[in-house]
Amino acid sequence: MRSRDPEALVAQAVAGDRGALARLLTAVERGGPPARAVARLVHPKAGHAYTVGVTGAPGSGKSTLTDALISHLRARSCAVAVLAVDPSSPYTGGAILGDRVRMQGHDGDDGVFVRSMASRGHLGGLALATPEAIRALDAAGFPLVLVETVGVGQVEVEIAGWADTTVVVVNPGWGDAVQANKAGLLEVADVFVVNKADRDGTAATRRDLDQMLDLGGGRAGSWRPPIVATVASTGAGVPDLWDAVTAHRAHLGDTGELVERRRARAAAELRAVLVRRIELRVAGLAGGPDFPEAVAAVLDGRTDPWSAVDELLSGMEPVWPAD
Amino acid sequence: MRSRDPEALVAQAVAGDRGALARLLTAVERGGPPARAVARLVHPKAGHAYTVGVTGAPGSGKSTLTDALISHLRARSCAVAVLAVDPSSPYTGGAILGDRVRMQGHDGDDGVFVRSMASRGHLGGLALATPEAIRALDAAGFPLVLVETVGVGQVEVEIAGWADTTVVVVNPGWGDAVQANKAGLLEVADVFVVNKADRDGTAATRRDLDQMLDLGGGRAGSWRPPIVATVASTGAGVPDLWDAVTAHRAHLGDTGELVERRRARAAAELRAVLVRRIELRVAGLAGGPDFPEAVAAVLDGRTDPWSAVDELLSGMEPVWPAD
Repeated sequence: MRSRDPEALVAQAVAGDRGALARLLTAVERGGPPARAVARLVHPKAGHAYTVGVTGAPGSGKSTLTDALISHLRARSCAVAVLAVDPSSPYTGGAILGDRVRMQGHDGDDGVFVRSMASRGHLGGLALATPEAIRALDAAGFPLVLVETVGVGQVEVEIAGWADTTVVVVNPGWGDAVQANKAGLLEVADVFVVNKADRDGTAATRRDLDQMLDLGGGRAGSWRPPIVATVASTGAGVPDLWDAVTAHRAHLGDTGELVERRRARAAAELRAVLVRRIELRVAGLAGGPDFPEAVAAVLDGRTDPWSAVDELLSGMEPVWPAD
Repeated sequence: MRSRDPEALVAQAVAGDRGALARLLTAVERGGPPARAVARLVHPKAGHAYTVGVTGAPGSGKSTLTDALISHLRARSCAVAVLAVDPSSPYTGGAILGDRVRMQGHDGDDGVFVRSMASRGHLGGLALATPEAIRALDAAGFPLVLVETVGVGQVEVEIAGWADTTVVVVNPGWGDAVQANKAGLLEVADVFVVNKADRDGTAATRRDLDQMLDLGGGRAGSWRPPIVATVASTGAGVPDLWDAVTAHRAHLGDTGELVERRRARAAAELRAVLVRRIELRVAGLAGGPDFPEAVAAVLDGRTDPWSAVDELLSGMEPVWPAD
């Protein structure tokens, strides 16, 4: 029974139904009133998962590294959900990632859930949908959610930086560390990975990163991001990477920074929702019956744009309808 | 007497006081309540000027071309104001342009007024300030306002496209016309100029532009943008350019497109003001006393972000204070 009723879907997903979880995530990705209904139902059931962001330039090996982390975690019986966010792609549904996981032999393993999420066209949509999707995975019982972002635009870095621990992946080679700095990756990194560390230049890249950290680059706070070398394709260094993530998690807990970080994230999310609600309201006003008359009044010189907008706003219903 | 009272400044500027006009434009550029006061006073006195946008890639010779246009127009006793908009630069005040005009021998000529306007930091500020500045120049009695934009980002193209007639400047050489297409310049062009036409490749660039227009690139409507060759540094072709602008102006008037274009611009401006007013309101809510409690409620799981925002919006004063 493929229910579309949000309440039934959430109950099924929480009870372990992976198909229901997939449909919940589709609703979240699509946005609009059904996504809001899901958000309201999921929120009280979430708040237990730890989130790890994985980001880096295209080709740095993020996906292979994520797969290697899944294997490492499954060998320790830790259930793990992966959310792969691609702001630049309209493709969605996780087919490619599904193949990837199947190749890895995780298919049929109920302790792994991999899902990709793509942009649905509206700007800022992914920034709103990503925390909702994480909460859905959280409510479904995954204690750990990896958020992999594809690309290194501002949105990708922002999304990756919203995790409890953010892993930034670079490769050996001249300039790669410098590029990471330019792209703003340095500022969100809690752990650095020099992946493909069987290639030349690993030591130099590590030195570059160290120098940038010495110069005060990087996130504010008492934690200095460790630099871990990995070869994701063989799994070399992956246990060290996970140890570094675990150490950072302990640091956040010990210092109270985890609470602070989550508070800042909640505030940023509230602001984003506020902006979205108001954007919808503006679209409503600009498409409403009074707008053409306001434009005509400005053109005729009867009023100026600021006074015309005052007029439009004063005529606005004080009650904000749910979008 | 350097009055700062908007009413006195507007009266002086309208009476021909160039110093008062310069101070008006500074108020417009700075934004905030004084700019709103100026807007309200200026608006009823404006609506007579014709605006011509001049845009193109850096180095294409826009400024030299604008200077040549000034000379051409002054020889015909047409008063002209130039607004040079640079969204990427924090520099302002028109010193460089002042020098430029002085070099041209227009210094002391009351029929020429040149002013640059730079970004004051806040996003979208120039998009709001540019039409206000044009109206101030209009109210001061200039029948013609040239709006020169520096750079070819989305904002620059948008600002240039807001004119009654938009002139797009390219140079001879492989790929320049293609670049113009990529940058979105093709879509805003009413007149094309191939400047530096004493160089090789002028015919090829003209052919490229023609082909792109044949393929349906360019603005919708019955006007096909003419392609004019100029050498701005010698003034060659500048009369032809002005004839093309004049022909386009006549076309807009004859077909009723001028009214349509100005209506669309007024609507876009109203929407921008609406967004700005609401942005300020959001900033107020996110900085207000209820916001930290809303964040805490979301973190505690007492509510979800969408419900928390509903709550914040419902507590919003229905009266919109002037910003």
